[in-house]
Amino acid sequence: MSKPTETTPFLHTRRILFGDIDSAGIVFTPRISYFATEAIEAWYLNRLGIDWHLINNVDKIGTPFVRMELDFKSRMSPPDIIQTRVLLEKLGRSSLTFKITSRIQDTGRLCWEARATTVFVSNETYNSIPVPPPYRAAVQNEAAIAARLLAEES
Amino acid sequence: MSKPTETTPFLHTRRILFGDIDSAGIVFTPRISYFATEAIEAWYLNRLGIDWHLINNVDKIGTPFVRMELDFKSRMSPPDIIQTRVLLEKLGRSSLTFKITSRIQDTGRLCWEARATTVFVSNETYNSIPVPPPYRAAVQNEAAIAARLLAEES
Amino acid sequence: MSKPTETTPFLHTRRILFGDIDSAGIVFTPRISYFATEAIEAWYLNRLGIDWHLINNVDKIGTPFVRMELDFKSRMSPPDIIQTRVLLEKLGRSSLTFKITSRIQDTGRLCWEARATTVFVSNETYNSIPVPPPYRAAVQNEAAIAARLLAEES
Amino acid sequence: MSKPTETTPFLHTRRILFGDIDSAGIVFTPRISYFATEAIEAWYLNRLGIDWHLINNVDKIGTPFVRMELDFKSRMSPPDIIQTRVLLEKLGRSSLTFKITSRIQDTGRLCWEARATTVFVSNETYNSIPVPPPYRAAVQNEAAIAARLLAEES
Repeated sequence: MSKPTETTPFLHTRRILFGDIDSAGIVFTPRISYFATEAIEAWYLNRLGIDWHLINNVDKIGTPFVRMELDFKSRMSPPDIIQTRVLLEKLGRSSLTFKITSRIQDTGRLCWEARATTVFVSNETYNSIPVPPPYRAAVQNEAAIAARLLAEES
Repeated sequence: MSKPTETTPFLHTRRILFGDIDSAGIVFTPRISYFATEAIEAWYLNRLGIDWHLINNVDKIGTPFVRMELDFKSRMSPPDIIQTRVLLEKLGRSSLTFKITSRIQDTGRLCWEARATTVFVSNETYNSIPVPPPYRAAVQNEAAIAARLLAEES
Repeated sequence: MSKPTETTPFLHTRRILFGDIDSAGIVFTPRISYFATEAIEAWYLNRLGIDWHLINNVDKIGTPFVRMELDFKSRMSPPDIIQTRVLLEKLGRSSLTFKITSRIQDTGRLCWEARATTVFVSNETYNSIPVPPPYRAAVQNEAAIAARLLAEES
Repeated sequence: MSKPTETTPFLHTRRILFGDIDSAGIVFTPRISYFATEAIEAWYLNRLGIDWHLINNVDKIGTPFVRMELDFKSRMSPPDIIQTRVLLEKLGRSSLTFKITSRIQDTGRLCWEARATTVFVSNETYNSIPVPPPYRAAVQNEAAIAARLLAEES
């Protein structure tokens, strides 16, 4: 169920695991795009009530990524726990652009930032479609949370 | 061994595998950052003679990524084979910035593009270090190959 | 810190994510060996106080797997949440053999079972070493929990 | 296209990559179940002409694993190249059981062994189905190759 009444941004927490680390002793770079994708998947579920697997296979609506950019700021390794904040920075007709900031939970040290854009598409035509009506109030609310926070931080 | 005498850009070929695909029937987004990383790892080996595992653990030199950006252009699924071109678009004192273009091998259809920056660092101090001397001729040659090709294509 | 006073088996919970699924709509087989490894890693941390990354890199003690067997019993896909029980079925001089059972949290439906053996080794000699003294009381307690439960269930 | 006229076992070659390695400096255990799955996927393609993605989505026939067992024999790290031999050890009505042996290509050192069973199922009923007729000659030929080799080696 979508949640248009949230007032604070979505936070996603994960422990860095042994298998996330490469032989240089830090998180292997492509794992960080998994971390970003996991956080966005969790945002969809928590804020819009959308399960990516079910929306794709039951509703025949896809939410593919069209772009992702990542800046790697500092090292992560176990036993670090990271807290990843997902902001809906920009709301288009069909697209959602997220600004993501991930920090060590205990110390607030910045580890990585990302910006990613997903688009609602029809799985029959592969064309983009407007944000479906059940999610519009919630995405507008998320965009307002983000606008307020980004204004405070700038 | 580094190869300062190449005249054409490095191409990396891989088959899209069953396990690369998600339940929407296309490559799962974070896999594409793996594909980019694999292609760059293969470039380091082919063009500079650098094995990331050995340079990290024997020479105590790291080559971490500081940034990666990806644009997802079209769908990939088995039995597609992609061919990924790795160009050294920009050569800094310590940093290498790659422009990567990946196409379906048979048809030339563009699937994704990426730009990524790695930096040479000391694994003792974690500070950046200049491109080590054994690789300088080869990276300059790679930058020249890229400059020529990008000029032709623009 | 090791916990020799636990009285119930370790349970590890995880949500099945979009990226765990393959194009057949179920968890991609090798992901299940990740799930088993994650659950065992969490057991080491929770029951022995061992962080695999730190014990390898600080204490120079490794805990490699020597064997893993997996039986795949039923389908998993989002929004399933699985609960994985880790029992220390057999305690050797250097080795720990786990019996792992993973079920859908809500319904108890069995999804997969595994048996896996890890061994304590010196990272200097790569030879096996006895279970280090700080963990002996806890592993004996875990073996007792497992023996009691497996007897009840047989 | 299935190939009932092969006379030697299928061999699959892959380089150990940086991202396959964990912070203990060796291949992360669950990656080895990926290696086994990749080798079996390549066997299906090479020997039966079956692309797992297409058979699932076009023919609506699945080939899920029901069991996998792995023995980890020795360390792998870059620049190792492994050569993995896939034998069809046992042919059932619906099931194929593989015996897999993976060695360092240059030296023949044994790295890991696996045994895995896949089953042909209908993706409509999820019930097992007999090996489909187009593949029967090829699987019988593969079983004969395996029987001969395993007899020689025992």
